[in-house]
Amino acid sequence: MVVAEMSMSLDGFVAGPDATLDDPLGRGGMDLHEWAFRLAAWRKPHGLEGGEVDVDSALVEKHLAATGAVVMGRKMFSGGSGPWAGDPNANGWWGDDPPFRKPVFVVTHHAREPLELGATTFTFVTAGVEQAIADATTAGSGKDVHISGGADVVQQAIRAGLVDVIDLQIVPLLLGSGVRLFDGLEPRRLEAGTVVAAPRATHVRYTL
Amino acid sequence: MVVAEMSMSLDGFVAGPDATLDDPLGRGGMDLHEWAFRLAAWRKPHGLEGGEVDVDSALVEKHLAATGAVVMGRKMFSGGSGPWAGDPNANGWWGDDPPFRKPVFVVTHHAREPLELGATTFTFVTAGVEQAIADATTAGSGKDVHISGGADVVQQAIRAGLVDVIDLQIVPLLLGSGVRLFDGLEPRRLEAGTVVAAPRATHVRYTL
Repeated sequence: MVVAEMSMSLDGFVAGPDATLDDPLGRGGMDLHEWAFRLAAWRKPHGLEGGEVDVDSALVEKHLAATGAVVMGRKMFSGGSGPWAGDPNANGWWGDDPPFRKPVFVVTHHAREPLELGATTFTFVTAGVEQAIADATTAGSGKDVHISGGADVVQQAIRAGLVDVIDLQIVPLLLGSGVRLFDGLEPRRLEAGTVVAAPRATHVRYTL
Repeated sequence: MVVAEMSMSLDGFVAGPDATLDDPLGRGGMDLHEWAFRLAAWRKPHGLEGGEVDVDSALVEKHLAATGAVVMGRKMFSGGSGPWAGDPNANGWWGDDPPFRKPVFVVTHHAREPLELGATTFTFVTAGVEQAIADATTAGSGKDVHISGGADVVQQAIRAGLVDVIDLQIVPLLLGSGVRLFDGLEPRRLEAGTVVAAPRATHVRYTL
């Protein structure tokens, strides 16, 4: 199953405006992930101590356990305009020990050898999101393929009919501007499934 | 308490594109209200027989019971470009017995005498949304003031700091284009409260 998971503001944005290298999610964009960042379930794989445990934790743990491989866009790998733009050998912005610890497939126009950082291997796919999802499906050994963003990669995958499920975290914030998750998509009906209500996000699973 | 209630598509639209007199909610816009239209709780006040009863019904009944008076924009009264545009005495598009049966205050630039239709009186307020809400508060005898739309009136009321709560029905549809509910608003944080999950809409109460 191919799952796109995104934290979206109530006004539809998955990143704020004016993304920079230091602030790759744009103004206010980090706040969209507050519901997760504060959790022990999120902090531990990121090498951080402590954190909270509540209804959101179970969701993060469930998603992590269900995921076999990850697909992301180039900007999500290298951070906004990113170091890779200038230096083809730069290691993105995930540091020496990225939290994924699973095969990650980066959709990009720039060919590059696979990059191993800690327990995570980034493979760079220049043949488009369809190929990246196919490669991730093989690498994930039957577990879910998790499309982590950005919005453009999710939109490409939806348009190609490759997304089975959107796990949407609807965050009670208005960002006012930025990058919209649902943009340039054809009108369509989805099926709303399980809802987990929490103060920092309403988690809804949509089946396409 | 001032409550704005809107049915919004997952991509943020409260009306589809190309609204006309025959199709005042624009292409796909009526589908946003399917969750309510099929209900006995909605059909009865609209003079229609039958209908379904389920988790959505309780919500509609609760909102109707809590509401003392209604505020709406001119387009919602007269339907899109509307009959009133051509004929200052036209009765809008709610028919001879509008379903409100409560005082309704219409925000408009065009002065007009109050209009009584069945058990509903429409009062036309030319002094802006703030005045309309003040008048509705008085007329509603302590019950909630319900802002029914459109998006522009809701936005004006939010910007003026007059909305206490948004009852949002998040409908699992992508409309692709149309009228956005949250547009031109300053970044801000809301508080997500009660969530009622149903197949046709995820109902979330947001406190501003």
